[in-house]
Amino acid sequence: MKLINKLLAEFFGTFWLVFGGCGSAVLASAFFAIEAQTPINIGIGLIGVSFAFGLTVLTMAYAIGHVSGCHLNPAVSVGLAVGGRHPWNEVGPYIVAQILGGVAGAGVLGVIASGQEDFKFSDGFAANGYGALEVGGSPGDYSMIACLVAEIVLTFFFLMIILGATDKRAPAGFAPIAIGFGLTLIHLIGIPVTNLSVNPARSTGPAVFVGGWAIQQLWLFWLAPVVGAALAGVLYPRVAGAGND
Amino acid sequence: MKLINKLLAEFFGTFWLVFGGCGSAVLASAFFAIEAQTPINIGIGLIGVSFAFGLTVLTMAYAIGHVSGCHLNPAVSVGLAVGGRHPWNEVGPYIVAQILGGVAGAGVLGVIASGQEDFKFSDGFAANGYGALEVGGSPGDYSMIACLVAEIVLTFFFLMIILGATDKRAPAGFAPIAIGFGLTLIHLIGIPVTNLSVNPARSTGPAVFVGGWAIQQLWLFWLAPVVGAALAGVLYPRVAGAGND
Amino acid sequence: MKLINKLLAEFFGTFWLVFGGCGSAVLASAFFAIEAQTPINIGIGLIGVSFAFGLTVLTMAYAIGHVSGCHLNPAVSVGLAVGGRHPWNEVGPYIVAQILGGVAGAGVLGVIASGQEDFKFSDGFAANGYGALEVGGSPGDYSMIACLVAEIVLTFFFLMIILGATDKRAPAGFAPIAIGFGLTLIHLIGIPVTNLSVNPARSTGPAVFVGGWAIQQLWLFWLAPVVGAALAGVLYPRVAGAGND
Amino acid sequence: MKLINKLLAEFFGTFWLVFGGCGSAVLASAFFAIEAQTPINIGIGLIGVSFAFGLTVLTMAYAIGHVSGCHLNPAVSVGLAVGGRHPWNEVGPYIVAQILGGVAGAGVLGVIASGQEDFKFSDGFAANGYGALEVGGSPGDYSMIACLVAEIVLTFFFLMIILGATDKRAPAGFAPIAIGFGLTLIHLIGIPVTNLSVNPARSTGPAVFVGGWAIQQLWLFWLAPVVGAALAGVLYPRVAGAGND
Repeated sequence: MKLINKLLAEFFGTFWLVFGGCGSAVLASAFFAIEAQTPINIGIGLIGVSFAFGLTVLTMAYAIGHVSGCHLNPAVSVGLAVGGRHPWNEVGPYIVAQILGGVAGAGVLGVIASGQEDFKFSDGFAANGYGALEVGGSPGDYSMIACLVAEIVLTFFFLMIILGATDKRAPAGFAPIAIGFGLTLIHLIGIPVTNLSVNPARSTGPAVFVGGWAIQQLWLFWLAPVVGAALAGVLYPRVAGAGND
Repeated sequence: MKLINKLLAEFFGTFWLVFGGCGSAVLASAFFAIEAQTPINIGIGLIGVSFAFGLTVLTMAYAIGHVSGCHLNPAVSVGLAVGGRHPWNEVGPYIVAQILGGVAGAGVLGVIASGQEDFKFSDGFAANGYGALEVGGSPGDYSMIACLVAEIVLTFFFLMIILGATDKRAPAGFAPIAIGFGLTLIHLIGIPVTNLSVNPARSTGPAVFVGGWAIQQLWLFWLAPVVGAALAGVLYPRVAGAGND
Repeated sequence: MKLINKLLAEFFGTFWLVFGGCGSAVLASAFFAIEAQTPINIGIGLIGVSFAFGLTVLTMAYAIGHVSGCHLNPAVSVGLAVGGRHPWNEVGPYIVAQILGGVAGAGVLGVIASGQEDFKFSDGFAANGYGALEVGGSPGDYSMIACLVAEIVLTFFFLMIILGATDKRAPAGFAPIAIGFGLTLIHLIGIPVTNLSVNPARSTGPAVFVGGWAIQQLWLFWLAPVVGAALAGVLYPRVAGAGND
Repeated sequence: MKLINKLLAEFFGTFWLVFGGCGSAVLASAFFAIEAQTPINIGIGLIGVSFAFGLTVLTMAYAIGHVSGCHLNPAVSVGLAVGGRHPWNEVGPYIVAQILGGVAGAGVLGVIASGQEDFKFSDGFAANGYGALEVGGSPGDYSMIACLVAEIVLTFFFLMIILGATDKRAPAGFAPIAIGFGLTLIHLIGIPVTNLSVNPARSTGPAVFVGGWAIQQLWLFWLAPVVGAALAGVLYPRVAGAGND
């Protein structure tokens, strides 16, 4: 496989992750239907958003796993490199493709969302944040420390799942189910804390359009996922013993 | 496999997609139970409708994939033909069978739905639409351009998933899971925009019974999915490199 | 495999289907938590009940599929026999085991449900019904004809999924996923119509404890599923062509 | 595989089960977004919590199944030993690792949850309980007997699923799907009864931090799951006949 094919795959895959995951949150998390003159909320809620994020990865892992390995996430690329599963010299190009895909996905989502009168980027646009701010920050007003711990722990386990499910000893073909639904699970736990990242490219995409606080807080969503992923890259082989690869 | 078997499979499969997907929306998206004298909504919501559409495809892909390939969607037939995965001379008959199946599925759904006093086809009957209309159109009042972009982008990725998950290099047997849950994901994102089509046969089924605006807007739900699917048919082999089939 | 093992498997499996499916509806479909002094509904709703019914079959199909084939449903046993997939001489004993399992599952559910003060069997206990009755009947007040059509069509497609996903040409091992999530899908569509049966044993279990209207209406939930299943048993081989088995 | 690797795997796996399952309940089961000045609940509800618990097991079973077998649950270790599937001499160490993992997972969850002003351990912290208490106990005020029966029956079927899906005759590789979604199903049924345990380590984790009633009631969540699991360990081989292993 040529590097250009891998990078195209990472671009489209990360586009899909940000467009689909953030798109479900922006377009459908709350939605009102009129029943007997009364508006009732039939939106997909945080559970629908959680499934959306997970299914972007599940679908892409089956669609392009055989091309690029389907990282879609700088922290995943780093974690796999630390764990000896991916060559370090591809990590840089992968991350560039992932960032470009994430920004493009958020941009196209912005075009669609702007087709409705009420839409404003300043309502959040699914950007990640921490702390109790007037505008933006943690959806549930969680402190910076809580958000930092949450992102580190959740990315750590995300990488443990990835490293474990793609271990030679794990049943072949099922890894996309474990990893995709793993990301769903991670969102079921943590959206109220940080709007959930575990993925610097996913955080960067909407932040570019929201600006201000979202850009200022972006450092945490690069630092914490990469730290959590690297920890798993170090620990998985020690937990799993011989046979890791 | 004889063509007549393939066409019967496409007919029943598309019947199921429209009957099941639109049926969940019409019959169950909002539903009130009485608890302690108060009506509370326990309906399946847009997330339930999203799972229903996706599961019609997941179930049929396992049930009739070995017969017809389980397209159930004119855009899928076109996209697969463009991508070199399906013979062009079957595309026409497939599309006819899909339309007939979609209309029949919507018709039988109408018979059941009409068994409740409050039901009216003019409430929408899960038809697709765009723009802010008094009656019908986009559920969330999204502009025509936003709806066009959404249907093109979502069908493009639907076909990328289909072409990728059925690539020889992807793990065998899992494609129906990727494709079915891919359709679920697509609905989680886009129901508020167009009521979500990505499938001209799915749009045609209910439109025949709703008439008026739904028929007038049908062109977009043929144009956009076919354009998005053809784009993926062109792009996937270039992204995925050698080995595509 | 001895017949007694098959019958024990069908007994426990149908126990689980009725206990788990009806249990989720009776115990958890609506549930109020107190947030800031206000009761809010965090119950699983009809979507949760739909997943519960489907997952009883998915789990049992992997757990006892290799013992009895995991029918758990008289209509399935009849449909498979009509389609030439199961010996007719086992259909009778299978149905007896399924009924006993369904009644036992409903009975144990009744013991648990009765551990809460407000519980009354007369609130419905997840029994199936049709028509607009003062007490019982169709949850959404659908007419008898609508309910009859719904149960026939939905059981027909349930058996098409079963016959197709267990066809020799379908990928091995995935049938429980297709069939289980197929039952989830069927519930997403039809709970408001009949509380959803497609399974005479599932209908009989709670009806025995509810009595009255539930017993009087039981005939439809034997007739319609068996008719729909037999139709699929006749049609599937004709749709799927050579290779059916 | 060395015992230390197995115990590390059980520690991290049970950490994930308690952190993720209880975490989804504590952090996300109810969550309010502001739409047009009105707070609306978009939390994941009991269905989201049910998926979270199940997905912790699905993901870990693919990630560490090849290391320790992925029990994550003292009742599972006992039930597998009774059924002849796991050596008795590892049951003790496994249980210690599971308890430590469960307590650690609850502890880290407490750190994150405490990052929000309103959080109090005394609100329950997802601990299990029975009976109608002023503070704590059964979420839906179910009697001790109902809770005992529910936990025994649900653990019994959990182990039947585990023993069946890992039977040599069941299709290879799918067990984590059956078992994970089986735990989801069990939660869909029973959260209102006991907050759902079927796992003494899961109960012990939060109880340590809640103290008081949660510690006093812990006996039931050790007794009932172990009894239910042992019953399945005895019964499964008799139901399934020759070939069990």
